[in-house]
Amino acid sequence: MQPPVLTIAGSDPSGGAGIQADLKTFAAHGCYGMSVLTALTAQNTTGVQEVFPITSSFVEQQIDSVLDDIEVRAIKTGMLYDSDTIRAVVRALKKHFTSTGFPPLVCDPVCVSTSGHTLLHPDAVETLVSELFPLTTLITPNKSEAELLLSYSKNASAYPEIKSLESMVGATQDLLSLGPQAVLIKGGHVVVNIADLDKFSTQHPDVLIVRDGLFDENMEILQVGKTPSISEQIIVVDMLREHEGSISIFARPHIATKSTHGTGCTLSAAIASELAQAQCLVEAVRTATVYTHRGIEGAPGIGRGNGPLNHLHPLKRVLIPSKSACNPYPFTRLLIEESATIWKDFVQHKFVKLLGQGILPKQCFTYFIKQDYLYLKYYARAYGLLAAKSTSFPEIASATRIILDILKESGAHRTFAAQFGISLEDLENAEEGLATAAYGGYLLTTGLEGDATKLLMAQLSCLLGYGEAGLWLKKKATEEGSTVALEGNPYRRWIEIYSGESYQKAVRIGLETIEARAEGDPPSPARFQEWITVWKRCTEFERGFWDAAMQLE
Amino acid sequence: MQPPVLTIAGSDPSGGAGIQADLKTFAAHGCYGMSVLTALTAQNTTGVQEVFPITSSFVEQQIDSVLDDIEVRAIKTGMLYDSDTIRAVVRALKKHFTSTGFPPLVCDPVCVSTSGHTLLHPDAVETLVSELFPLTTLITPNKSEAELLLSYSKNASAYPEIKSLESMVGATQDLLSLGPQAVLIKGGHVVVNIADLDKFSTQHPDVLIVRDGLFDENMEILQVGKTPSISEQIIVVDMLREHEGSISIFARPHIATKSTHGTGCTLSAAIASELAQAQCLVEAVRTATVYTHRGIEGAPGIGRGNGPLNHLHPLKRVLIPSKSACNPYPFTRLLIEESATIWKDFVQHKFVKLLGQGILPKQCFTYFIKQDYLYLKYYARAYGLLAAKSTSFPEIASATRIILDILKESGAHRTFAAQFGISLEDLENAEEGLATAAYGGYLLTTGLEGDATKLLMAQLSCLLGYGEAGLWLKKKATEEGSTVALEGNPYRRWIEIYSGESYQKAVRIGLETIEARAEGDPPSPARFQEWITVWKRCTEFERGFWDAAMQLE
Repeated sequence: MQPPVLTIAGSDPSGGAGIQADLKTFAAHGCYGMSVLTALTAQNTTGVQEVFPITSSFVEQQIDSVLDDIEVRAIKTGMLYDSDTIRAVVRALKKHFTSTGFPPLVCDPVCVSTSGHTLLHPDAVETLVSELFPLTTLITPNKSEAELLLSYSKNASAYPEIKSLESMVGATQDLLSLGPQAVLIKGGHVVVNIADLDKFSTQHPDVLIVRDGLFDENMEILQVGKTPSISEQIIVVDMLREHEGSISIFARPHIATKSTHGTGCTLSAAIASELAQAQCLVEAVRTATVYTHRGIEGAPGIGRGNGPLNHLHPLKRVLIPSKSACNPYPFTRLLIEESATIWKDFVQHKFVKLLGQGILPKQCFTYFIKQDYLYLKYYARAYGLLAAKSTSFPEIASATRIILDILKESGAHRTFAAQFGISLEDLENAEEGLATAAYGGYLLTTGLEGDATKLLMAQLSCLLGYGEAGLWLKKKATEEGSTVALEGNPYRRWIEIYSGESYQKAVRIGLETIEARAEGDPPSPARFQEWITVWKRCTEFERGFWDAAMQLE
Repeated sequence: MQPPVLTIAGSDPSGGAGIQADLKTFAAHGCYGMSVLTALTAQNTTGVQEVFPITSSFVEQQIDSVLDDIEVRAIKTGMLYDSDTIRAVVRALKKHFTSTGFPPLVCDPVCVSTSGHTLLHPDAVETLVSELFPLTTLITPNKSEAELLLSYSKNASAYPEIKSLESMVGATQDLLSLGPQAVLIKGGHVVVNIADLDKFSTQHPDVLIVRDGLFDENMEILQVGKTPSISEQIIVVDMLREHEGSISIFARPHIATKSTHGTGCTLSAAIASELAQAQCLVEAVRTATVYTHRGIEGAPGIGRGNGPLNHLHPLKRVLIPSKSACNPYPFTRLLIEESATIWKDFVQHKFVKLLGQGILPKQCFTYFIKQDYLYLKYYARAYGLLAAKSTSFPEIASATRIILDILKESGAHRTFAAQFGISLEDLENAEEGLATAAYGGYLLTTGLEGDATKLLMAQLSCLLGYGEAGLWLKKKATEEGSTVALEGNPYRRWIEIYSGESYQKAVRIGLETIEARAEGDPPSPARFQEWITVWKRCTEFERGFWDAAMQLE
């Protein structure tokens, strides 16, 4: 469910880069994050104050501990500090994986911090290239890292500056020859505009160009205000070259911001997260660039220097916990907890208690039966409306079965009425009370107003409440010293109906239905509030229904 | 927006405990996580293999880097390893905060790992108690840590075992006297059942008892199968004592699992996250115990030993990015991207192109005008239905204004008809084509079926598409060498209407409305799919509408 992903990198205590950024990125992608530390830094958004090395043997020991126990689905490396550490990483990885059994390995060749601090000893570049690169699925240098790596490969003579799309093409080719399976050059510091990209696109028809957030045709209506003409806008271009030589370009608008601390860490961690979920490389890079771009856009503005990204932007908190053995109906449970007082007033209403004891005044019960008979008509119609709002045969069938149940229940009401001396004519012509009219009107209005789930919410309180009242009375009747009794109770049949198998089966189906709705379409906070409001309102109507009957006491 | 929270603790490379668990927990609570490392471990779910200490001066340097730059809202400490480290932490904190200006500080007095590894030197207990405890808002020992701390306070004579609720009461009191503002003893290893809790509750009526996931009264309907009688169930009880002496108890069912690696780290990090968001202590602890409990329930089953919790359980990925300067209408943009081909077929339909060039056959245009006149009746009625489904005056007003716009548009159609030689009688009695009937029926059915947002989705394609076609033609007309022209075009008025200020204002309001809906009620994946489906269907209907007109070419 959560694929394990490992980062092997340095620590940034201020949380914006290093393993901290990686772990946040893994979490944002639904991965199980793990991190082996190669070196510690004392740093913040203004720069790196100090570096504290870790012995290479302890780096190796950490990797052993992880790989001995857990099957990783992807690995990324960040700051590797020195040659010994790189060798330890390579040794540990080779110990655990055969050459064909490597998980995807993304190497972010971190050399120098944004603030200019050396994060990889100069003499370690050779080890990085010769020992680690051949194992990598992808390396992700930025402009200056690419230039540094390529200077090394050219025997330390300076590599020409990468300053255009054409020079990126050459540089990705040269980097690929150093051994990795693919190369992504991050173009954050290469100045390109859309005209350059369009020209390049014409000259290289084979290159896949993904334009994200650059307004395409057919979106005239989405343009706002006087933005600079698109062709003048500075854009950021990342270029991916895969082993077979194919090039993909990911272009998006440049954001004028100083919140770029940890951008490289974040991007490579995002790519590793996507690869861990078996995404193909082009799609992994595309998704990761979008994730990183949005992280910069939504930067929280923390610290006085180059602030961190918002790593958590694609996440929202959910309101309803998952189903579990000790909480089989989490949504309904929340509904009841949120309305505890009204719910208790309803299901343990004085009407219910007196009925359970067999001492409910007859006129209260007969009034109730007449009103409930009228109510059942609204209730059946509401399920008719539910059928009309359904989009599948099972949903239509379910709503229809409930109408049949309600028609049966109305028959039971006719029997009660006869038993209590109410003629069928009196029952059919009973005057509708306000409590009945208000509740019935609310049911159908809610159904017209909202979707099927909202209507189900309105129907739920009645269904569950009578089931709860029935079970509660049945339980009370078995308790020693209880005044609730079935024996000799004139209302025994009522208790038996609502605690009985047939009604309880309907309760069960109602519970399963509403839980499935909440699980299949987890509500936003606003929608959750709307659902709760409907549930509470109907529970109040239910209480009011019995209040009205008790006024005749 | 994301309150910064700092953990000062050890590293667990396998990701389940230490700063890794803390950072995940902070993320799950929407906090900005930071971490200062006190020691590294090589460990996994089977145990701790090795510990790598960090110098106390570097611990202090890390804290300095964080606190010099970032305003933290809460701090938690975990594994502090030895006396020097504790002193360095205390020194660094005191340097940055006055005694009254401390942020909430939660100390998890990690002494021994679940697997028995020493994580705090025995001689450091005294330093922990005498130097750090007085600064803490809360300490969170488990049973054995509490016993160890209390043995120390009693001059190393063994403290009686904590094995009941009553002994927890005494232990929290004794721990409080060691200096912290509050004490939470975690009862994971104290065996208690509901009968014990009920008895305790009777004897201590002042104690707040929060029963989470233990079925309360009025939830008979939620009970499933033959679970052991509640009174026999083993429960887990955490006991909180605050400085003023008040006690709160958090009880929940015991989960039989071996996935408990990092539970203590997680709980204390969750409490710190809640405190960072200005939650009161009782509520912070309650929420944090629920979070941790659900994390255990949802454990991903990683590793061969005591596996980690699911730290990410309250998070879901969102589908629609946030609004930004370069993406002012993110939801609509997604809709258009998801339906790129159909959308283009619609807004750049042959009908539109020929109309723009002024060479659209007259019979095509007159057929279209007649059918669109019929369609506008459905469209107006759909907004009437939207008004009926609205719950606020502004929503009702907005729907009503659009009906007025449509009535005006129908007037424009009458003018077009007259210009093109169609009598009002012919217009009113035009025979409805299939494309019109299908689209009109779909609009009203969708409105009956779903909620107001779903209806808006059905209304959107027409509104936006005509606006887009209008703007596109207007733009084309200004391009050099374009065959699209306004001058001398018999359909000029049509282009001017849909690219004009009044219609574009309606487009703008429509965009703002739908974006506000998507932002205010972010859809679940299922609901998002439902919305997309409606949007695509209507875009197809729009294309079909012009297809029908072009059949007369």
